[in-house]
Amino acid sequence: MKVAFLGLGIMGRPMAANLAKAGNEVTVWNRTPKDVEGAHVAKTPAEAAKHADVVWMCVSDTNAVERVLFGDGGVEPVLRAGMVVVDSSTISPVETLKFAERVRAKGADYIDAPITGSKIGAESAQLIFMVGAKDETLKKLEPLFLQMGKKIVHMGEVGKGQASKISLNLQIACIYEGFIEGFKVATQLGVNPEKFVELVQSTMVRSGVVDYKAPFVLKRDYTPNFPLRLMRKDLLLVSDAAKQLELDLPGLKSVLEVYDEAHEAGMDDQDYAATLALLERN
Amino acid sequence: MKVAFLGLGIMGRPMAANLAKAGNEVTVWNRTPKDVEGAHVAKTPAEAAKHADVVWMCVSDTNAVERVLFGDGGVEPVLRAGMVVVDSSTISPVETLKFAERVRAKGADYIDAPITGSKIGAESAQLIFMVGAKDETLKKLEPLFLQMGKKIVHMGEVGKGQASKISLNLQIACIYEGFIEGFKVATQLGVNPEKFVELVQSTMVRSGVVDYKAPFVLKRDYTPNFPLRLMRKDLLLVSDAAKQLELDLPGLKSVLEVYDEAHEAGMDDQDYAATLALLERN
Repeated sequence: MKVAFLGLGIMGRPMAANLAKAGNEVTVWNRTPKDVEGAHVAKTPAEAAKHADVVWMCVSDTNAVERVLFGDGGVEPVLRAGMVVVDSSTISPVETLKFAERVRAKGADYIDAPITGSKIGAESAQLIFMVGAKDETLKKLEPLFLQMGKKIVHMGEVGKGQASKISLNLQIACIYEGFIEGFKVATQLGVNPEKFVELVQSTMVRSGVVDYKAPFVLKRDYTPNFPLRLMRKDLLLVSDAAKQLELDLPGLKSVLEVYDEAHEAGMDDQDYAATLALLERN
Repeated sequence: MKVAFLGLGIMGRPMAANLAKAGNEVTVWNRTPKDVEGAHVAKTPAEAAKHADVVWMCVSDTNAVERVLFGDGGVEPVLRAGMVVVDSSTISPVETLKFAERVRAKGADYIDAPITGSKIGAESAQLIFMVGAKDETLKKLEPLFLQMGKKIVHMGEVGKGQASKISLNLQIACIYEGFIEGFKVATQLGVNPEKFVELVQSTMVRSGVVDYKAPFVLKRDYTPNFPLRLMRKDLLLVSDAAKQLELDLPGLKSVLEVYDEAHEAGMDDQDYAATLALLERN
């Protein structure tokens, strides 16, 4: 298929590369020029999308999706019947509905398909997509999904992918915060750090989050895999959704305060694992 | 071996039964009289412990351990060299050190060996013990541990078992809170509840905690497996420890507020899963 891939960040770039490797005709665009092996490079989203069957976005936030679709040089003028716009960014579920409506007004279709699986998952085509889409539209794009990922979970109509994704990331933040707080208490009480991780890994509190982060925690290595500013952005999306739903969420409130504090402390470009450093100040 | 088993609650009773089944000579005691198949019943902790090689405790809190050991009818007067006191309750790591010292003053030894694995794990002898003990004392009791559980993680000297256990339970509370808050956001945004659980189970936020609780969450079944009051007690133990260590733990603070609110609302004897009901009021 002819695919325009818009957004070549930590996740987008290996995703586009996997689509090219699988034999699709891929044209990429990024805000700051980047290239991808085997892909054409376009100067604007519209230029990338012009002859595409599918426009796949993986950009940083709700505003970026809006600009790529409807801003200067955006995709909207070249949309046509039969095209599908897919959004693998993590953005507002409510704005997603509005974007989908505007895209459909031009005869194209819209899928929200945020991802989980981290940088490694993107590189090794092991992503999990949580998808909001009509059955037939998803069916049509299934081969592309499986060239970048290992699993598609169809969450329902458009918007349900984003609703699910922000809820997952809230869970990641809560799991990680619980882990580092438990880690601090136990190790300050004299438990060996490696032993503590071994125990966690033997019990019902084991999760993929801890599997992935524990080695970095032991080394205090905060090299970004999932940058703190992106986790904070996602928690703010949950917070917006919770306000609209009139839900009072104490766990969300406390992790958001943690990430606000980390943001104030200039830690935006470290991995979110760096929130441990907040517990270790002074 | 001759084992006195003190405390026949949700966990203690099946543990004592498994020791009896394995061929040990077991004498049980409980505050309110209960029996266990194949075991003698004693009227006081001291009577149960009189001829025992090992005194195994599984009671509700720090005060209960103190009473069983040093209160009226307590074990202290019958302690003698060669005996080992094992505590599988979840109690204060700091008080544990004091109890161990008093027990050792009588020539006996002391192990803290709190458990994880829930009611089902106790019944099926699949518990995990996190142990604070001297190597040789633990070695001697290994067969007993493995008659009740599947794994022993030796965390270090006396006290380190309790330090580890309270840190694990903080993690359980944070994982569960993150799960139910994510569940509420996603389902209120229209995601199918079963589908959301399926997604969680496919990703890095999957944990044994969610595996175990999700079916109960879907049915809003709050029958106690791990009663809310016990989780709250453990969070209070972490809070005490954090104060002594001068650690500021925002995640702990917020889950403790949740459990305080549940306590105020009279939910002590429901499962801790019932904290979901707090999000679903009005």
